[in-house]
Amino acid sequence: MSQTEHTAFDVEAFGRWINDHDQLAKQFAMQLVELSPGACAVEMVVREDMLNAVGLCHGGVTYALADFAFAVASNSHGQTAVALSATMNYPAAAREGDRLTARAQEQTRSRRAGCYAIKVTREDGTIVGLFTGTVFRRDDPVSNWMSE
Amino acid sequence: MSQTEHTAFDVEAFGRWINDHDQLAKQFAMQLVELSPGACAVEMVVREDMLNAVGLCHGGVTYALADFAFAVASNSHGQTAVALSATMNYPAAAREGDRLTARAQEQTRSRRAGCYAIKVTREDGTIVGLFTGTVFRRDDPVSNWMSE
Amino acid sequence: MSQTEHTAFDVEAFGRWINDHDQLAKQFAMQLVELSPGACAVEMVVREDMLNAVGLCHGGVTYALADFAFAVASNSHGQTAVALSATMNYPAAAREGDRLTARAQEQTRSRRAGCYAIKVTREDGTIVGLFTGTVFRRDDPVSNWMSE
Amino acid sequence: MSQTEHTAFDVEAFGRWINDHDQLAKQFAMQLVELSPGACAVEMVVREDMLNAVGLCHGGVTYALADFAFAVASNSHGQTAVALSATMNYPAAAREGDRLTARAQEQTRSRRAGCYAIKVTREDGTIVGLFTGTVFRRDDPVSNWMSE
Repeated sequence: MSQTEHTAFDVEAFGRWINDHDQLAKQFAMQLVELSPGACAVEMVVREDMLNAVGLCHGGVTYALADFAFAVASNSHGQTAVALSATMNYPAAAREGDRLTARAQEQTRSRRAGCYAIKVTREDGTIVGLFTGTVFRRDDPVSNWMSE
Repeated sequence: MSQTEHTAFDVEAFGRWINDHDQLAKQFAMQLVELSPGACAVEMVVREDMLNAVGLCHGGVTYALADFAFAVASNSHGQTAVALSATMNYPAAAREGDRLTARAQEQTRSRRAGCYAIKVTREDGTIVGLFTGTVFRRDDPVSNWMSE
Repeated sequence: MSQTEHTAFDVEAFGRWINDHDQLAKQFAMQLVELSPGACAVEMVVREDMLNAVGLCHGGVTYALADFAFAVASNSHGQTAVALSATMNYPAAAREGDRLTARAQEQTRSRRAGCYAIKVTREDGTIVGLFTGTVFRRDDPVSNWMSE
Repeated sequence: MSQTEHTAFDVEAFGRWINDHDQLAKQFAMQLVELSPGACAVEMVVREDMLNAVGLCHGGVTYALADFAFAVASNSHGQTAVALSATMNYPAAAREGDRLTARAQEQTRSRRAGCYAIKVTREDGTIVGLFTGTVFRRDDPVSNWMSE
């Protein structure tokens, strides 16, 4: 992908596309509310079908919200990014009805790799998830996926 | 919790209870197919509503499967375990229709902490997720939750 | 430990004590240059005896610097913190002669756990390590160790 | 690198080279005692200069031992591997005089990435470190480094 093509990448169109085409994001009603190259915010309300056996928001759901923000942020430059690994910390619990926000921020980016930090918070600001993810960056442009 | 109570913990009843009461496990049709103290296996078939924007199994779904196996294995001794952190590696992709199996194995366990490794594989044996999770072990018995 | 004792904890005396008594910090000439409750900065210059087989700063050395900052920050409230797990990302390499700075910042803290983010940078600001660590917080005060 | 060159890679010569040229391995007297493609074992005795402020083996030292085993195992096929991220869990402590063994085992390997699990144990079998690391695999052969 040439530098010119990078410059031409329409990050807003990408945001609409990924929010519409990610089936898990749709199922969990995740809303991409902010997006700029390398950063985004995604919101979601915890529903009854997202709870674990003791009635708290499932760790897999909190992770999925962070993971979607990770995918959005890491692909937002227009070069395809593939998740290699991620670490999640759970400092506090979320409950049914909580509106959660995942904020992703690029920490580092090189030609072949990138590292992203995502914080998931409740409306009162309590952090319920701290996620760090690493991607491998391929040569193909994200626009190839969007035109399929 | 006394040693006697530990011994008396009915791991099979616990397995039925957690598989029935975990709402995400139900929504994703996860099936707990093996269970012994410290170890378990959970199966799930990748559905269309579990895909990401490029048509592969969402990283959050693969993680959620591993995370459920983590919760089952870490609570299977009858002492309540709370997830503190987890790391997921994605060596390969899973696709719609793939039957995935998450196998959890306790690596270490002390009075206050435990560490679990979970491998998620496709039917052909390809590893699609390598998960390592750490729990804090509280004093309250799991049976308190089961009787609610 | 009572709240009063917490208030009375002398964070500067703790900083001097831990920098003097950590043998690895001494061996690698790590210098604690900033310290406040929950945060610190530690500096170190990469030496020839810290290199790996291809002549770059050993990943274990970059980690050790971050880990020392993690220990300082997580014990800086006066309550003993024990490391449970940590994740390190290596976005870029460091070389012999580089002055590295590890900056630790508390992300979350509850009665029993805490999560810390540490960034390791070269003098030009390039990030060479992104570290996230989780501690279990015990009841005993750090001052017990300092008086030994 | 062609498949032929891979086949011709002398893993034993590589083992001698990396153990001799890794300065941290030399400083800490790490001994590579087993090596085959994708797996190895490294031993080290905990010395006074490896202790933290409370007199236990420094988390950075246990990590460094695992990290060296990670480097050996991930480069043992003859294709250069670069560490992207690693996670360490500390289930138990090690003390001065303990002989530690780090055993690395390849979990997955593709053209561009690899995942390795390393267990660090004391002589009594107690696990003191559980390490999982991810590498990016470049095109250049390890033999380029060895001939420098």
